[in-house]
Amino acid sequence: MSQPQTAITPRREDDFPEWYQQVVKAAELAENSDVRGCMVIKPWGYGIWEKMQRGLDGMFKATGHKNAYFPLFIPLSYLAKEAEHVEGFAKECAVVTHHRLESDGKGGLRPAPSAELAEPLVIRPTSETIIGATYAKWVQSYRDLPILINQWANVVRWEMRPRLFLRTAEFLWQEGHTAHETSREAIEETEKMLDVYETFAREYLAVPVIKGEKTESERFPGAVTTLCIEAMVQDKKAIQAGTSHFLGQNFAKASGIQFVSRDNKQELAWTTSWGVSTRLVGTVIMAHADDDGMIVPPRIAPTHVVILPIIPKPETREAVLAAARELRDALVKQSYAGEPVTVEIDERDLPGGTKTWEWIKKGAPVRIEIGPRDLEKGTVAMARRDLSPKEKTFPLAAEVPALLPAVLQEIQDTLYARALAFRDANICKIDTKDEFVAFFTAQRKERPEIHGGFALCHWDGSAETEAEIKDALKVTIRCIPENAPAENGECVWSGKPSRRRVIFAKSY
Amino acid sequence: MSQPQTAITPRREDDFPEWYQQVVKAAELAENSDVRGCMVIKPWGYGIWEKMQRGLDGMFKATGHKNAYFPLFIPLSYLAKEAEHVEGFAKECAVVTHHRLESDGKGGLRPAPSAELAEPLVIRPTSETIIGATYAKWVQSYRDLPILINQWANVVRWEMRPRLFLRTAEFLWQEGHTAHETSREAIEETEKMLDVYETFAREYLAVPVIKGEKTESERFPGAVTTLCIEAMVQDKKAIQAGTSHFLGQNFAKASGIQFVSRDNKQELAWTTSWGVSTRLVGTVIMAHADDDGMIVPPRIAPTHVVILPIIPKPETREAVLAAARELRDALVKQSYAGEPVTVEIDERDLPGGTKTWEWIKKGAPVRIEIGPRDLEKGTVAMARRDLSPKEKTFPLAAEVPALLPAVLQEIQDTLYARALAFRDANICKIDTKDEFVAFFTAQRKERPEIHGGFALCHWDGSAETEAEIKDALKVTIRCIPENAPAENGECVWSGKPSRRRVIFAKSY
Repeated sequence: MSQPQTAITPRREDDFPEWYQQVVKAAELAENSDVRGCMVIKPWGYGIWEKMQRGLDGMFKATGHKNAYFPLFIPLSYLAKEAEHVEGFAKECAVVTHHRLESDGKGGLRPAPSAELAEPLVIRPTSETIIGATYAKWVQSYRDLPILINQWANVVRWEMRPRLFLRTAEFLWQEGHTAHETSREAIEETEKMLDVYETFAREYLAVPVIKGEKTESERFPGAVTTLCIEAMVQDKKAIQAGTSHFLGQNFAKASGIQFVSRDNKQELAWTTSWGVSTRLVGTVIMAHADDDGMIVPPRIAPTHVVILPIIPKPETREAVLAAARELRDALVKQSYAGEPVTVEIDERDLPGGTKTWEWIKKGAPVRIEIGPRDLEKGTVAMARRDLSPKEKTFPLAAEVPALLPAVLQEIQDTLYARALAFRDANICKIDTKDEFVAFFTAQRKERPEIHGGFALCHWDGSAETEAEIKDALKVTIRCIPENAPAENGECVWSGKPSRRRVIFAKSY
Repeated sequence: MSQPQTAITPRREDDFPEWYQQVVKAAELAENSDVRGCMVIKPWGYGIWEKMQRGLDGMFKATGHKNAYFPLFIPLSYLAKEAEHVEGFAKECAVVTHHRLESDGKGGLRPAPSAELAEPLVIRPTSETIIGATYAKWVQSYRDLPILINQWANVVRWEMRPRLFLRTAEFLWQEGHTAHETSREAIEETEKMLDVYETFAREYLAVPVIKGEKTESERFPGAVTTLCIEAMVQDKKAIQAGTSHFLGQNFAKASGIQFVSRDNKQELAWTTSWGVSTRLVGTVIMAHADDDGMIVPPRIAPTHVVILPIIPKPETREAVLAAARELRDALVKQSYAGEPVTVEIDERDLPGGTKTWEWIKKGAPVRIEIGPRDLEKGTVAMARRDLSPKEKTFPLAAEVPALLPAVLQEIQDTLYARALAFRDANICKIDTKDEFVAFFTAQRKERPEIHGGFALCHWDGSAETEAEIKDALKVTIRCIPENAPAENGECVWSGKPSRRRVIFAKSY
């Protein structure tokens, strides 16, 4: 075998879906629980989510939003109030029917028949209806608007084919829900939050995304407009990384969010909702990880720097650990992107190689080794996760703290540049049906996931054409890109006239 | 009426339970949702919870814990694994029985009979069983221990008599779950986390608490020992503010958390769990709020300072707002307790008195008024929520930023000192049954909640005596205080011998 050994088997290009599962496992990000479709998010994976939460939460607050919390349960009748909405979610709802257990007489338990609920409760798949019912009570006058609220919560959408982080029955997310006096304000809010998501993806996740609008068939159930950010991951598929919905007056009507306007008329409010979820963790893995495991962008790394003390002989132990602690104490005084640098010393009594490879697989941005010989020279061995595992530099220990913020930013920038170059290399304009089919047809039979990427094509605007393409190639319109220039052309599938190009891709 | 008008009706001493509800409402902390027993936590209330989370989370991490996330659902059979545990929770479990809705043929929806779950799922009332099942997979050797994990989550315990923050069907909490090699280590962890809770209550909530151990009948279902912190609130009742459980090997046995020990034997791990919940918000309200509404201790206030611009004439508007913003910009550069001072300018177009009283009722620690006359003198009018609404000082605006951190700490200290003095004035040693009964008997028929407080009494150690007292007076043993001195005496109820005093009280 001429290929170098990698820490993850299989490699990305051999079997991307299996590689993904192996990275999640090797990096200790999450695992399946015994409850079908529900995952356990392990500390390293949850640490990444916490950093994402912290970043997003700051951006939501800076744009005038406050957090609140609404019930987990939605009465069945609430869900039914908006016709498209219930149609979209009814098939994947977890339903609570009883509020007590009792002995089944065979040594086990059963839901107590005497404790059956008069009206079943649905575990929220999303909270438009329950939050709408609350806003209806809060809003009387235009003076009560806008309402700008976000909620961090768990939601449940029953999944028949679950996949860690990407599709799980229970997942964690944030859902913003706002109500406005005018259509214009609500549309501006929808766009503003899409911009927040794009900025967050770029600055924190180091993931370039395309902003655009969903076609009617891909819209959120009950929305007037669904805006989205779409990322390309390393198998060239698209992943929807966040959505922002302009709901018009649909949910205001269903929930009764009415107000007395400035000219003293009774009017319905205009609402929006917008969300991102733990799916972003899956997006980051698929965007940045390599054949040695996870690579965590520094802005969302639970630990920026791992210090690995090298202790060949017991008598060197104290001196090495003391140097490691001294370095840590100096490092945590530095700040990176407005937060203190985070450092972990891995003191576990395990072979150095084992520990090093664990942290490579977990994707900690920077590893620093300190051993007895380093102490003599006053240096350390520093390695960056975005470079080869063998590549190291040997700065003076005393100089490392001052260097580190710039090193972290370099890693962050490298990851972004790499993802951007990959995406740009795999987007192309296609104008004939034959080329279109070839672009989305597996290049090698044994790795069916690898195909051409994003195709920028003319589309005739009809749901029929969209459906035909989906049936034929499992390819969908990811979005109508924002600011797509007007350009006359012919639909790549039907040949009918088109006014602009849209993005076609396979997707998660 | 000789009594001064108060913002909240009724006053505490007239009807404490109704006063509590009115404070929650007037301060916009939470409200009942349309889902029975579930509350909507409004932005001001959730902001307080967020500050509590931030403080506790830092303390958990400083003691070596990491966050993770486990499933919302618990298979019925898991809950049944620990006999006492299921006995304790079965009667209040929300049970999921279906995973899809379908049309009921009458224009409504019903759980689809074809989508009934083979095994019902319980919404977690607490997560020992599902987390135990996970730890069983993670632990093989003593090298895998300890596991020190915390989870921030929602839990559900069906409540027949819900009350905002104090008893709700769904509530938010944190639950720490740790596994250890030895009994000693697990007991140390149990005690350490109780200390964290005590420190947090004192430093952040400004609430003095008594650390102690629960009697057998008040223990967590399945625990060997339950430690707790107990606070006294203004109706002299006790509220359990946090618990830390030493679970022995009970849950390790039920879940199969086994490891190969240092001497190569198969052993069961020793586990702990510990938690506090949104009930703490209720505790803080009942401990500190007054007849004008909420008083938020500065350490957990979503906003430290509210600036109220006073604009008598439109032409003064710009100058006043400019001064308000200048002051805000200077204030937010100050830090209090390690975090930036938070400031809100209330620019709403409402009468000054209305706005002032809203913030008094919400309990913002400091209010600062700026009007045209202040601009001339270079001063502001500053009011502290822990003092009378009419009491104001008039510092130079330029000096306010430097003053503020100390003002906030003074408020924090005043609240603590006030709560401590109140509690100490209402704890007494009681040695006769007659005095004991009198102490817990309503002093006036029309305010049955007001009674004596905490009684430090001898108890014979029997569950029978405990039950008799509970039946007779609705008084329970809140805890056996930590470090209670050995003291021979006679049980205040049975007259039998006793070795130390315990705390009796009415409680939430």
